[in-house]
Amino acid sequence: MQLTRKGLWAGLIREFRDFLPEIKDEAITTLLEGNTPLIESVNLKDIFGDIRLLLKYEGLNPTGSFKDRGMTMAVSKAREEGAKAVICASTGNTSASAAAYAARAGMKAYVLVPDGGIALGKLSQAMMHGAMVLQIKGNFDDALNIVKAITKDYPVKMVNSINPYRIEGQKTGAFEVSEHLGYAPTYHFLPVGNAGNITAYWKGYKEYYKEGIISNLPKMMGFQAEGAAPIVLGHPVEDPHTLATAIKIGNPASWEGALKAKEESGGTIGMVTDDEIIEAYRLLAAREGVFCEPASAASLAGAIKLKKDGVLIDGDTVVCTLTGHGLKDPDNAMNASPKPVKVAADVKKILKIMGF
Amino acid sequence: MQLTRKGLWAGLIREFRDFLPEIKDEAITTLLEGNTPLIESVNLKDIFGDIRLLLKYEGLNPTGSFKDRGMTMAVSKAREEGAKAVICASTGNTSASAAAYAARAGMKAYVLVPDGGIALGKLSQAMMHGAMVLQIKGNFDDALNIVKAITKDYPVKMVNSINPYRIEGQKTGAFEVSEHLGYAPTYHFLPVGNAGNITAYWKGYKEYYKEGIISNLPKMMGFQAEGAAPIVLGHPVEDPHTLATAIKIGNPASWEGALKAKEESGGTIGMVTDDEIIEAYRLLAAREGVFCEPASAASLAGAIKLKKDGVLIDGDTVVCTLTGHGLKDPDNAMNASPKPVKVAADVKKILKIMGF
Repeated sequence: MQLTRKGLWAGLIREFRDFLPEIKDEAITTLLEGNTPLIESVNLKDIFGDIRLLLKYEGLNPTGSFKDRGMTMAVSKAREEGAKAVICASTGNTSASAAAYAARAGMKAYVLVPDGGIALGKLSQAMMHGAMVLQIKGNFDDALNIVKAITKDYPVKMVNSINPYRIEGQKTGAFEVSEHLGYAPTYHFLPVGNAGNITAYWKGYKEYYKEGIISNLPKMMGFQAEGAAPIVLGHPVEDPHTLATAIKIGNPASWEGALKAKEESGGTIGMVTDDEIIEAYRLLAAREGVFCEPASAASLAGAIKLKKDGVLIDGDTVVCTLTGHGLKDPDNAMNASPKPVKVAADVKKILKIMGF
Repeated sequence: MQLTRKGLWAGLIREFRDFLPEIKDEAITTLLEGNTPLIESVNLKDIFGDIRLLLKYEGLNPTGSFKDRGMTMAVSKAREEGAKAVICASTGNTSASAAAYAARAGMKAYVLVPDGGIALGKLSQAMMHGAMVLQIKGNFDDALNIVKAITKDYPVKMVNSINPYRIEGQKTGAFEVSEHLGYAPTYHFLPVGNAGNITAYWKGYKEYYKEGIISNLPKMMGFQAEGAAPIVLGHPVEDPHTLATAIKIGNPASWEGALKAKEESGGTIGMVTDDEIIEAYRLLAAREGVFCEPASAASLAGAIKLKKDGVLIDGDTVVCTLTGHGLKDPDNAMNASPKPVKVAADVKKILKIMGF
């Protein structure tokens, strides 16, 4: 018996090389990121009716978030250019991804974070991957400014989202959705924080459309958290707040890219409340079996809202990108869950609680 | 331009249907598990020389561990048989997986755990996925006995590892390794707790060998933690202890299967200390960029030990299964990591700490 080989996935750069900036083979730094599942929703018909809903589960990238798509590109290019170290200001998914790819490349990683108010657990990935974590007496902007100052004069590459290769890697999410479906969805929903992902997906769809790989384009639907919705409000938010920490951003780096994606595609940039985010977060875990971090659920929360508003209709294909794994944020999971029931080791009592 | 579709992975049951128990299509419950990356080690040449070392990264299954392979089978069969609920006694990865697949199947999940000493964080996945978690006044054996009593008389399926479909699903890990490499490795290293995984991989390799898909068989190398090594000692361990909680088991359910895998393949069942486990855990994260939970690293710790002992030699192909994602156990990650460095928001001071 002879089988066709399945799943021989070589990582994004090698898989999508024709669509990415040129890079020398020996510089490619990969953890076989990408190729994440596009999971069909099966249990939300009461909400979505005959809309086809699919979940792009980016939490199954190696470090647990979509950041790995951009980071394989950014770190590989840094390596090609001879950098011995990378640096970023980040309290979350970016630092984890930067540290992992730097470790893989044999490079040093530095992570700058503001002192105070940072749960160390959030940084445990970066630290395990051997990054040097520096807690700066100052706020996040101070940390970012220091990163900029250092990378101007020293051979350390910045891998924050200002790095252009990040967007190049991230656009491959749109390639995968296109190839999985064989076409582009009617709507593509994404959480919007720094707005790099919606910018990147739109770029990806346009490139596949131009090459004739897909013959339609989706409407790009970005959703911010109500307390951190600068693009919706039209001005930066001084003190953004939302429990969806991964999109708690007051002045997005890719603001223009998000607006362009919205305008060119005929989409929207909207906002959802923390309650709507948590409701979507719970629905995904409890009814679809898909556990994402709260920020990820902003995409589904946006889709639910637009279904209620009558924008989405039967026959539409809707893809929601879930940006990170739920394991990234155990604290919110604990808060969103019912508490365990304590009971004696007695079969009859337990059966009663179980409802028999 | 026309592309060949990549990564259209349909989940294990549909991908490996010819090798699995028959099941009706409408009962199949999948989160598109399996198809996990086989990551080539690139930075451990100082330890392994010209041995080819590959890491089967099972943490990239939907709930973050290899348990999803067995659970898609167990829950699908339970559904086919008309069960409306599943139950297990578990404090960790099994409960997360059972709850997720039950949610997906529209079934109720019950998780029984001993009262006291359980970190609720460990149960947050099960709770998010809507399982009813019952804390029993008693120990783990009491919980398991109650599960057995209930499933004997009520329409609730037990999905603990006694469920035979678990092994069937888990054997697909060996199928994937065989297909990725085109042959079986010289050695396959696995952590051994309940011993289901080593039993399952060996079954998988033998089935592919019998069908002529591979023309060799690996030596099966199972590693237990020193404080929880009943198979090595030849008798159950009353009070097992190890920080690798996922393999802290004193009386493995698949004891016989593990011995058979060892004997038939000419392999070994060995043990490694907690220090050796933590050292391998750190190496994987800091040098390969691969973050697994501590128990997972028992496989690599075993391989390092046998390389030092001269058992593994240049030219060998060695696969280590990493059973769960590092994000499953943030506490151990924090303990194993250096602390952040606090510093003023001063570029010069920061550059000095960075070594410039």
